[in-house]
Amino acid sequence: MNFNEIIRKKRFSEKLNKDEIDFFVKHFTDGTIPDYQASALLMAICINGMDEEETYNLTFAMLKSGEILNFNTEKLIADKHSTGGVGDKTTFIVTPLFAAMGGKSVKMSGRGLGHTGGTADKIESIPNIKINLTKSEILNQINKVGACMITQSENIAVADKKIYALRNATETVESNALIASSIMSKKLGCGADVIVLDVKFGSGAFMKTKEQAEKLAKIMINIGKEADKKVSVILSDMNIPLGYNIGNSLEIIEAIEVLKNNGDKRLRELSINLAAKMYSLAFSEKFETSLELANSKLSDLSAFNKFSEIIKAQGGDITYIEDTNKFKKAKHKKEIFALSSGYISKIDTQNIGKVSLILGAGRLQKTDVLDLSAGIILNKTLGDKIQKGELLATLHTDNSEKIEKAKNEFLKSIHISKNKPHIEPVIYKILD
Amino acid sequence: MNFNEIIRKKRFSEKLNKDEIDFFVKHFTDGTIPDYQASALLMAICINGMDEEETYNLTFAMLKSGEILNFNTEKLIADKHSTGGVGDKTTFIVTPLFAAMGGKSVKMSGRGLGHTGGTADKIESIPNIKINLTKSEILNQINKVGACMITQSENIAVADKKIYALRNATETVESNALIASSIMSKKLGCGADVIVLDVKFGSGAFMKTKEQAEKLAKIMINIGKEADKKVSVILSDMNIPLGYNIGNSLEIIEAIEVLKNNGDKRLRELSINLAAKMYSLAFSEKFETSLELANSKLSDLSAFNKFSEIIKAQGGDITYIEDTNKFKKAKHKKEIFALSSGYISKIDTQNIGKVSLILGAGRLQKTDVLDLSAGIILNKTLGDKIQKGELLATLHTDNSEKIEKAKNEFLKSIHISKNKPHIEPVIYKILD
Repeated sequence: MNFNEIIRKKRFSEKLNKDEIDFFVKHFTDGTIPDYQASALLMAICINGMDEEETYNLTFAMLKSGEILNFNTEKLIADKHSTGGVGDKTTFIVTPLFAAMGGKSVKMSGRGLGHTGGTADKIESIPNIKINLTKSEILNQINKVGACMITQSENIAVADKKIYALRNATETVESNALIASSIMSKKLGCGADVIVLDVKFGSGAFMKTKEQAEKLAKIMINIGKEADKKVSVILSDMNIPLGYNIGNSLEIIEAIEVLKNNGDKRLRELSINLAAKMYSLAFSEKFETSLELANSKLSDLSAFNKFSEIIKAQGGDITYIEDTNKFKKAKHKKEIFALSSGYISKIDTQNIGKVSLILGAGRLQKTDVLDLSAGIILNKTLGDKIQKGELLATLHTDNSEKIEKAKNEFLKSIHISKNKPHIEPVIYKILD
Repeated sequence: MNFNEIIRKKRFSEKLNKDEIDFFVKHFTDGTIPDYQASALLMAICINGMDEEETYNLTFAMLKSGEILNFNTEKLIADKHSTGGVGDKTTFIVTPLFAAMGGKSVKMSGRGLGHTGGTADKIESIPNIKINLTKSEILNQINKVGACMITQSENIAVADKKIYALRNATETVESNALIASSIMSKKLGCGADVIVLDVKFGSGAFMKTKEQAEKLAKIMINIGKEADKKVSVILSDMNIPLGYNIGNSLEIIEAIEVLKNNGDKRLRELSINLAAKMYSLAFSEKFETSLELANSKLSDLSAFNKFSEIIKAQGGDITYIEDTNKFKKAKHKKEIFALSSGYISKIDTQNIGKVSLILGAGRLQKTDVLDLSAGIILNKTLGDKIQKGELLATLHTDNSEKIEKAKNEFLKSIHISKNKPHIEPVIYKILD
């Protein structure tokens, strides 16, 4: 087989067969196909697309490029994955909540690039926590406390890592086929039997519209079904940051507020729905009943206690959970005040993410070091009434040089107008 | 400027401005932009296209990446360029013919990849010839004999070399913008005032249809005009190999036959038209008058004598011109006979090129060594009547192992049927 002919077919919008896709994934992973040829194919895929069969074949080729975990537990193992949004800290609520409901989950997360660190980075803001567990440690912990929150093994979907790095460098990230196969090859490799996907749309998400998100969701559900997994998708709104805190430790702190039965309603609602959906699939229970159970386990602090148990089992210092004031504070704070009066009518959520990156909370390059205490605490959000001079938000960073730039970007992201805007519910649709 | 944003624009079909194109060419040439990013942009250009302004800016950016020659001669310097076809040896007829008519030309050619060597390789089958001349040697020779046939300086359109190598490896060759800018940046760098382009279409050409070829031609004419050059295009048919010989020395031998007033009529007709067009532009003479002059200078052997003069001036052994039997013969010959009777109704000319490559006449990789005596001599061509068992062609090579494969490919390329096919004239249209 000749890789040039494969590039050529996709360049002219022809369908690639399984052998051709396997050839690409195998030989790009083993280094036979150079980056400059792979990026030409990736661009052709982005522009000309792949159909469901091609996407399915790509997913499975990437899945097979690495280790495929299988925990062989009695109960079904559930996993939840988000396509990424600004202020998304649902993992820290959903994982203990689902365990408090009696479920088992192995939450593996990446570090990633973006406006904040990945879930694995955020959890590391809790001192002493160990997020690199062996398979027997994982099994031991899920038997004992029901869940663990760890880094994803380097051996899962090996091809995806290499392809993702190249996509990131060549503007070939946005593509349903490439996004779906990247997410699903990793999820299928992690050994979960139940997968609940939080697919986000809006100004702070990859997918700008509901329609795009729904299309991607359906592709991923079909891939999951082909792999004999139970898969559901919650389509959620990312036109507003999720909650009020954006950063690493700042997001842990806000998740703990929700676990303590305070905190943002939208964040609580989405978290409960995700946990309920996982439960409903894993235990073949009605969704309504699962929702009620999730609600009660959050309200009676079972989920909060479970969070402490999980952190403790992984060696983390739980005094930080009990008193979030103990988290290291950023060296510099900058309060931002409203320049006019009215309602917050629009938030450019992607740009809020950029502000977080400027403050040091995220990485542009894999080697960048995170400032775990950096980020943004919003004082007001979409639809809130505000007076000129009233506090809009506080920026946190260890790097005072970046504060002015961050402030200017922040002010560009917040629109204030006379009319109260319409606010979409956090959950648009649930798909099975 | 950020190269990712440039890739992104073209990915989403946006127009690139001059600064962005300059940035790409400059930093790809200096190595700042890696191959894997450049190939993503090239694929996006191939699929989403570039308009005339972008193509013009790309051409000039590539032109400026290298040396721009200027001979400052009294008479205008003319050049002719072909977009590439099978059996195209017009350069060896047109260059001496135009000089015999009183014109001045500096014919610079590349070595290139393909079914045969480039023009520079072919001319080297004449022993002792020197094709690497200094600028003063060039000027001296065009003052003395009117023309030289040399290799193109490595310093011209430096970016084009690097971009072309990447295009070749990533299936991003076919693109009007990339082809036009590649050809025109080199031609403009060679210092010619008059440029006549032979743009080919058909089964043996890059452009499969007349319409595609005409579109490309118009783009190149406009680029030439923007650069204040006199430019014309002859659109010529490449559904049949040009002439009967395909190879390196074999093509020189056939060119000499035409210069001796024998040889293929289509090859003669195209050569005369190209030389006449060069003359008409360089001397502001009517095309009809120029054609008559070209015809007479070929018929009275002035062009043949001029060819000897040019070869002699460059140190070549002219006894080979006088007696072409002196050219080194290939070690192995294989005669191919018709498998049925009828008319030759179709020739897959691109595949005939492939046969020539198999025989050793061309290069796949830059480092491949050419077999200068290898190639094909056709005994029959499109429209000829043939009897089963009659000689179709003879294959020539030093590598006997390749002969069977070459024979099979050759037979696949020749279609014989009961009906005499319609044969298109060699020249379809002349555009100014």
